[in-house]
This record gives sequence, structure tokens and C-alpha cells, in this order.
Amino acid sequence: MSQRVAIGIDFGGTNVKVALVSEDGRILAKSTAPTDATAQPASVVGQMAELAESLLIAKRIAHDNVVGVGLGSPGPLDFRRGMVLHSVNLPTWENVPVRDLLSTHLDLPVALDNDANAAAFGEYWAGAGKGGGDFVMLTLGTGLGAGVVLDGKLLHGHHDNAAELGHMIVVPDGLPCGCGQRGCVEQYAAAATVAKRVESAIKDGEDSSLATRLQAGETIDAKLVVEAMKQGDALCERIWDEACMFLAITCVNIQHAFNPQSIVLGGGMAEAGEVLLDPVRDHFTKRTWRLESDRPQIQLATLGYDAGAIGAAGLAWKMRLMRNK
Amino acid sequence: MSQRVAIGIDFGGTNVKVALVSEDGRILAKSTAPTDATAQPASVVGQMAELAESLLIAKRIAHDNVVGVGLGSPGPLDFRRGMVLHSVNLPTWENVPVRDLLSTHLDLPVALDNDANAAAFGEYWAGAGKGGGDFVMLTLGTGLGAGVVLDGKLLHGHHDNAAELGHMIVVPDGLPCGCGQRGCVEQYAAAATVAKRVESAIKDGEDSSLATRLQAGETIDAKLVVEAMKQGDALCERIWDEACMFLAITCVNIQHAFNPQSIVLGGGMAEAGEVLLDPVRDHFTKRTWRLESDRPQIQLATLGYDAGAIGAAGLAWKMRLMRNK
Repeated sequence: MSQRVAIGIDFGGTNVKVALVSEDGRILAKSTAPTDATAQPASVVGQMAELAESLLIAKRIAHDNVVGVGLGSPGPLDFRRGMVLHSVNLPTWENVPVRDLLSTHLDLPVALDNDANAAAFGEYWAGAGKGGGDFVMLTLGTGLGAGVVLDGKLLHGHHDNAAELGHMIVVPDGLPCGCGQRGCVEQYAAAATVAKRVESAIKDGEDSSLATRLQAGETIDAKLVVEAMKQGDALCERIWDEACMFLAITCVNIQHAFNPQSIVLGGGMAEAGEVLLDPVRDHFTKRTWRLESDRPQIQLATLGYDAGAIGAAGLAWKMRLMRNK
Repeated sequence: MSQRVAIGIDFGGTNVKVALVSEDGRILAKSTAPTDATAQPASVVGQMAELAESLLIAKRIAHDNVVGVGLGSPGPLDFRRGMVLHSVNLPTWENVPVRDLLSTHLDLPVALDNDANAAAFGEYWAGAGKGGGDFVMLTLGTGLGAGVVLDGKLLHGHHDNAAELGHMIVVPDGLPCGCGQRGCVEQYAAAATVAKRVESAIKDGEDSSLATRLQAGETIDAKLVVEAMKQGDALCERIWDEACMFLAITCVNIQHAFNPQSIVLGGGMAEAGEVLLDPVRDHFTKRTWRLESDRPQIQLATLGYDAGAIGAAGLAWKMRLMRNK
């Protein structure tokens, strides 16, 4: 088989996902294994390499037909030195030269970026942003992650910390955020924080169909909030609509900062589909300026949980193009 | 005289300023003439060319030693076609191919950008941002103009409308803005809007030492607000401090969007110097996240009203570098 591939690795605190990805962004094979959060980094890197090699053997792809490896990793990272500096969920990962370790294991060049950026690059390259121009992705999960692609390149910024759009402030003196700020959009419009706001409101005595579940010790998540809302739960409707409104304000601010062609919404909250997209678009149209010719398209992500591995592979394909220039 | 220069033109609704600028960003000669807002564009372009030629003759610089022309113009512009599409203050300027007109007049290549971008590029190239990395400028005047320089290039965005940072929303459902939005930072933190907020508060019955001036028919401007504040006027103190707070929140949002090395404050409000800079820095330090290693430096602009002409010339120098690559 002479098909050429890049290896894309989506490395997270819970799972490691490895995929073989073609030059046009299709997954040819993938596998997932749980991350051993207590293991030494060298053995975790060895596990990534083994997963990749098993896939190559299964698909009968020779080493010469692998153009490179992309790795999306939790951070913060040092891009220039290819290192994971540390990680909240992986206590053994302190100053790990993961790029060179993985490169040695697989005898291939490795492109490293953070997980949110890899997912954004995936959607830009092979998903909702495919074939388009400047691109911003918001991933609405436990937190609100983001990635920005300008002129085909992920924006890193002077201190490698650009595109932390979840920490843009939308409410002066608003809800406290784990980052130390107040009023970050992440506190209003990520899957976990929407659920948390519903929980707090119920604990404060507001009426909701979810109150009995909470009293029974169940955890409320964004999916339950959406279900309750569809059945007319007023509290869930209000908090979901506020989330959409704050996302729309964030889209206005992204429009005026980057003026991208598209803004893509992904992550757990985006599984709600039109229930998320329609109100975000409505609030955006009401709240942005009158000049219509410069508006970004707001869309849903299309790659789901594969975005990270596909995007990491896309970075490897891109690195190869740069080398051959 | 064998000195090589670029011609920088800062074209505004009130004045046309032309400067001869060296490769290291120094003005060798400059002149200013009032803009005839009712004249046909072709004759205004002719006037720009004459001002430039007079300076070259006075400084005995031969045409061969002029590397090019940069023009900062009111917009919106069509960058690809080098056109002014229209202008609020110049009613005769509709779809004017100003780049080619000026190029024909002077027999030189012309780089065109909007006035806020030209000023930002001036400060980046030869002012407060000189020698540094990614850079954002906020110009606090009648409005709140902005320019963003990433990797040495002005950011234009997919629809040529990036870096309109004055229209980032800092107060959901806040004060109405001329652009059609509500709560734009421009409504709280530009020289003209700070003065207007003080006026409105006095008309609403609040106490201020400026009340008698307003009753006498005087117009309140930002300079008067600063003077009154220095003498302990509580209303002016409050509104100025709010302006600084909203600028600080905007700097936090710029930090998380672009993560630049520096954010520079210029325009009329920046003439207040430390009275502006110190509270903006204080509010920023209190309101940004705990991670200190990625913070942009917040500084005052240093080129004053020459930034536009110097920046336009800088764009001409840069265009020449690109041609010679």
C-alpha cells in the first residue's frame, strides 16, 4: 500500500488518541487508550509510539510513507524547545521534552502544539473551516478553549499565550474564574459552567425540574440542562440563553479583533446543535454593528472528538510542506 | 545629498501632512496643509504630490533617492484595489483609486493603509514599539482607533476590517454607539466620549467644578476634565477612572486575543501622560489573570501627531524590502 499518512496524536489527561491521517484530512485508522496519569512521561510517550506503530502495521503502511507526527498536548508548552512545562492533570509532567522524546521513538519529525490549538487546526484544515480563510474556534467543554488560524497558521503570540479567548472579560466584576480574573466568558458559556450555574441557582432556591435530580445526588451536566430546557424549564432556558448571549458578545469581539471568515463552535455544548447555534446567531445579529460586509460566519464544528488528532496530523502535513519549500 | 527617503502622507479630513522619512524612522522635513474637503479627489491628490515635491526640492533629494510613498487615509478602503470606498468627512471621496492616482503623480510605488493602521505602524516601527515584537496601539481621540502588528505586518483580517478594537463590547447592553452596537469601549474611553460623559452627568444634575463653564456655553474636552480632576473634581475623577478601568479590561482582552509584547496608548487622552498610564496599569494588574509571564507591557505613544506620517513612510520602506526579496 503506497498511501502516505501523517500520525496525529491527541494527548489528554484521560485518553491518548492516535490516528493515521491522509493528506486530505481523512482518518484511515485510529485507536484510543487510557492515559496513565501516574506513569513517567517517558513510558507514556512510549505508549503513544506503540499505538502509532500498531496502526501502521495493521494498515501495512511502511515507515517511508509516514511524513511526520503531530502532537496536541495539554500545556502550557514551550514551543521553541518542544516541551510540556507542566500540566494540571498530569502531575509527573514537569519540563518534559516531549517533542524530541517522541521523535526519537518513531524516528520521525514531530510538530507540537497545545490541545485546543490542534483541535482548532483540525476544524480549519478538514472540518467546518475547510477551504476557507482566517478562522477562530471556540471549544465549549469543561472550560472554554480556543484557537485562531490567520493566513493558514495558528496564532501563538509573543509569549506563546495568544487565543486564550475563554478568558476575555464579558462582565466587569462578574463571576470569579479559576484563572484569578472576574467575568471571563468561560464562567458563563462553557458546558461545565452552564451546568454549574443551574446548580447554584437551584441551591439558591430557584424553581427547576432538575431540583429533584440534584437532591437525589445526581450531577447536573449541560446535556441535562438542554433536555430540561426543551421541556420548558424556565431556569434552564434563562441560563442557556445567557450563555448564548455572552458567546455572541464574544463573537462580536472576535469579529472586531481578528475579522475572521468564520467562527466555529465545538465541544460538549455544541452537541446541542441548532439549539446552540440559532440563539448565538440571533444575539450576534442584534448586537454587532450595522456594517454587514465584514461579518464572520458562525458555524458548528463537524469533526467532533476527532478534531484534535486530525488537527495534529494536519500540523505534521503542514510542517512537511514548509520543509520542502 | 545622497540620503534616501520615503515619503509619508497622513491624509485626514482636516489636514494633509507630508514628511520625508529616513530608513531609521526619522523625519527629515515635513509640511502640513489644510484639506479642501469639497475639492475633487484628483485635485487633493495633486496637492499631496506638490507638497512632497516641494520638500524634496527644499532638501535637494533626487527622485532616484526616494524609495516609495506611503499613504494613511480615512476609510473604509479596498486594499487590493488601492481605493478609498467612501469617507464620512470627505463627501466627494467615493470609490477613488487613490493609490494609482498618487503613484502616477509622483512616478513612485504607493503603499496604502488606513489612518489608524498607519499611526500604529509608526509607533511600532519608530516609536514606543521600536525594536519589539507583536504590538497593539489604541488611539484615544474622537473615537477609539486601533492597529495590530503581528510578525511585523499590520493585521487586516479576512474582510479588511480587523483591529477595530474600539468596538469591542465591554458593557453588555451599555451606552449606545454610533456604530449601532451598545457598550463599545469607545463610548467609555475615548477623549471625546469621556468629555461627553462628564457633560451628560452635569446636565443630569451632578456636581462638578465644570458646571459653570458648561452653563457659559463652553465645550468640555478631555483636557478640561483632566485639569478639573487634578483639582479634586469628584465627578471628573470618577469618569476618568472608569475610562481607565475599561481600557484595562480592553488590555486584558487584547492580552488573551493577541498576546502581544506591548500595548501602546496614543491620541488626545494620552497627552495626560502618567495620569492615564498609571491607573490603566493598576486596573490591568488587578484584573488580569495570575500568570505573569505573558503580560504585555502597557506604554504611552512617543511620536505624537507625527505617528501617521512616519508610519505611512514606514510602510513604503517595508514595501521596498518586500520587492527586493
